[in-house]
Amino acid sequence: MTEWDKNDETLIRALRQGNPRAIARAITRVENPGIERLRLLQRLFEETSVSAYRIGITGAPGAGKSSLVQQLIPCLAARGFKVGVLAVDPTSPFSGGAILGDRIRMQEQIEETGAYMRSLASRGSVGGLSRGVNAAIHVLEAAGFDIALIETVGSGQLQVDVRFVADTVLLTLVPEAGDIVQAMKAGIIEIADVYVVNKADREGAQRMRTDLRLALELGAHKPDWNPPIALTEAANGKGIEELTDFILEHRAYLDNSGAWETQRLQHLRWEMESLAQEGIEARAKQAIDHLFEQETLLKIARREENPYPHLQKLWEQAGANG
Amino acid sequence: MTEWDKNDETLIRALRQGNPRAIARAITRVENPGIERLRLLQRLFEETSVSAYRIGITGAPGAGKSSLVQQLIPCLAARGFKVGVLAVDPTSPFSGGAILGDRIRMQEQIEETGAYMRSLASRGSVGGLSRGVNAAIHVLEAAGFDIALIETVGSGQLQVDVRFVADTVLLTLVPEAGDIVQAMKAGIIEIADVYVVNKADREGAQRMRTDLRLALELGAHKPDWNPPIALTEAANGKGIEELTDFILEHRAYLDNSGAWETQRLQHLRWEMESLAQEGIEARAKQAIDHLFEQETLLKIARREENPYPHLQKLWEQAGANG
Repeated sequence: MTEWDKNDETLIRALRQGNPRAIARAITRVENPGIERLRLLQRLFEETSVSAYRIGITGAPGAGKSSLVQQLIPCLAARGFKVGVLAVDPTSPFSGGAILGDRIRMQEQIEETGAYMRSLASRGSVGGLSRGVNAAIHVLEAAGFDIALIETVGSGQLQVDVRFVADTVLLTLVPEAGDIVQAMKAGIIEIADVYVVNKADREGAQRMRTDLRLALELGAHKPDWNPPIALTEAANGKGIEELTDFILEHRAYLDNSGAWETQRLQHLRWEMESLAQEGIEARAKQAIDHLFEQETLLKIARREENPYPHLQKLWEQAGANG
Repeated sequence: MTEWDKNDETLIRALRQGNPRAIARAITRVENPGIERLRLLQRLFEETSVSAYRIGITGAPGAGKSSLVQQLIPCLAARGFKVGVLAVDPTSPFSGGAILGDRIRMQEQIEETGAYMRSLASRGSVGGLSRGVNAAIHVLEAAGFDIALIETVGSGQLQVDVRFVADTVLLTLVPEAGDIVQAMKAGIIEIADVYVVNKADREGAQRMRTDLRLALELGAHKPDWNPPIALTEAANGKGIEELTDFILEHRAYLDNSGAWETQRLQHLRWEMESLAQEGIEARAKQAIDHLFEQETLLKIARREENPYPHLQKLWEQAGANG
């Protein structure tokens, strides 16, 4: 318990001055479920004037997402943006896929450019994770960051989830036989707005771009946006300027076409639904603990008590809020 | 809309007389979410004196689960049980993995033994599916069935789900290189109470039993139950009597050790939680539709309105039921 936990106003003041420890503390507090999160988010909302532009970076482990992020940060900073990075990838060197010394060095390099980097616990449900990511973005927004880079692992459910949060989704691939097929199978080939063929010095990079273009044309894609494909070598910084152009072109497209508003409202709706459900589910669990305590369950199992009138009452009570 | 939909009492009377069409109609009605399901379940509960013993049969597609079910039915019937089968496996020949003529022939053979067979739609969420399965079991119970055989496909999330419903879980494997490894990877090797090496006429069946025994000894298993491994040839009925013995031995173990009550209470709790959540989630969606209509979302996106006081109020209202 620090002074910041006792007094939100001192925390928010330090946060708005860009104090990295205050940002970290605030993210930890809003990452955790509960009514306290809502209260702090309410205050952060009041302190925020502009929403951050959210860039999701996804792709399989080993595709070089973290190196891309490291290269993108100075590039975006040079164009006048203040960049915050949230790593929700357990395989990311930022969050644990590197030895501690390397991690600290990376973090220092990032913070030298005025950027902020933080890894988020990927424990818990997918819904819980996306609530945590949204909440962390709001901390960055209150601290004056105008870009949030979200690095997520491209496997399982998580990489689809970034689509629920990010304005622009980058899919990172490497020239390897079967990588496109894997991405198609996982259903992620069509969620991206910008594609990156990283490690483009490897054999087959040009061929991969052609194949990917074909795969995108085969699938019905976004009506007015033809997703660009960047060839990069993140390890030595090649192609990053072009990739930055592509990202900002997508941002301009969203702004000019009106797609931004539609998409942002949808994301906002998901965010609100998810937060509402969290509270309601917690209360449901309480109600059930109360209604169906061990003794009642035993009676039901022995057919001495009918559970359905209780359930109907619970449904009706919940309905009284509707 | 049939007479049965207008009058629950005629439906329940027909059901209790064992009318297969009435059973089918009742299952369809309780499969669908909504308050009507709760009302019918309440009546069914009143009409039921004994809970059915639930046997889950899982395994990869092609392992021969449906053939096993077909062989188990007469075996269990000969020992005095009335057997209902619920197929929640989209690859099962019962539900769609066979041409219509074959399916009808299978159904007829099954019904000749006094058993009842029904496939359940596997559409919707896992939670939705297990609610549907539980509800269908209650229909079978009200119709006087004392065993419910639940056939589920052994891949993805579903095969773990059967553990939340079944008293005894059978895992069906075939002598094929890597099948045990696949099952271990999928995390299903430890959920079963009885193991079946089907197609035991194939090379490697004995070896597979040895390997499986080793794998089970390596993993920490149930404290007092040493899961038996049956070798069967479902296609020609070999090994089915022994398998039936193993299943009923597990049932006796559950009864005698007190594990039955612990496990059944846990399952009952999951079932109740799931039903309560269904109602509460539906109402949450309504509340959000109301609170966060498009215009409000737009105001929030433009930072003209702070959403968090609304969310806090919603949480507090939900809490009033707790």
